Amino acid sequence: MQKYIISALVSNKSGVLNRISGLFSRRCYNIESLTVSATEDNAFSRMTIVLIGDEYVKEQVFKQMDKLIDVKKIMIAEEGKSVYRELLLIKVKAEPEVRSEIVQIQEIYRAKVVDCSLHTMILELTGETSKLNGFIAVLEPYGILEMARTGITALTRGEECIKDRKDYNELI
Amino acid sequence: MQKYIISALVSNKSGVLNRISGLFSRRCYNIESLTVSATEDNAFSRMTIVLIGDEYVKEQVFKQMDKLIDVKKIMIAEEGKSVYRELLLIKVKAEPEVRSEIVQIQEIYRAKVVDCSLHTMILELTGETSKLNGFIAVLEPYGILEMARTGITALTRGEECIKDRKDYNELI
Repeated sequence: MQKYIISALVSNKSGVLNRISGLFSRRCYNIESLTVSATEDNAFSRMTIVLIGDEYVKEQVFKQMDKLIDVKKIMIAEEGKSVYRELLLIKVKAEPEVRSEIVQIQEIYRAKVVDCSLHTMILELTGETSKLNGFIAVLEPYGILEMARTGITALTRGEECIKDRKDYNELI
Repeated sequence: MQKYIISALVSNKSGVLNRISGLFSRRCYNIESLTVSATEDNAFSRMTIVLIGDEYVKEQVFKQMDKLIDVKKIMIAEEGKSVYRELLLIKVKAEPEVRSEIVQIQEIYRAKVVDCSLHTMILELTGETSKLNGFIAVLEPYGILEMARTGITALTRGEECIKDRKDYNELI
């Protein structure tokens, strides 16, 4: 089993997310995370899906998504060739006597403190998944109350853009 | 029309995203962004949906989602009481003669340069939506090649946690 990061440019209209998530649920394919949001062009949204599976599953998902009329462009954001980033908000127990220890961890990871109450703190961290997981592990002994992470978003390094891939104009 | 940020704790299994997105597409409700990702508890995912609509639409979505057996907890992350964050990756044209101007903008916004080629740069910025939109607007004249944003993720300020809301244990 491997992780594949699928990046797609899709029509920005109601029902598209449902059609795409239907592809995954019908086949019981496992989505680790999904983000969908606006792009520079109001007609399109950009979707980033982290898929857990083998080569066969990846090929299937790729082909099935590519067939959908609302999927304008699709690519695998390959490791090494792409920038992956994820955002984490995490609320930890922070009684006054351990607060300075948590601040120290925050400084080491270059995280930000975004909220602080008498007994809790919210920290924000951006980076690759492994960095976020390390940060969560080191905070675990203090007591994690809740967390929200966005899941991965990705761009290809260098000059290549998703919309320059062939058949963009044919499909609009 | 207003923006509502819905935060939900849902079962971490195949088909849940499809069931939830189906609620929106059947009624043609407009999702501005959606993120879904792992939590501190492997049994649950956390979903953050930015919904555009009026008070009636918000009430409908809230009630319909709350009825789903896979939705364990649901709340509106209210402005003022919550921390909202979003992550942006943006690739801009950056010929050598304008590179220093772009670096200046990056410093003002405290963004990060995550990739640089001869003719392009990728910048990373985290913040609230309005800050990200301001950053995009100021980079527009240089030529935006592509961008990927995660959409909003949110946590309630202070000690309150989504899983402490009532009926969590009844529904598991």
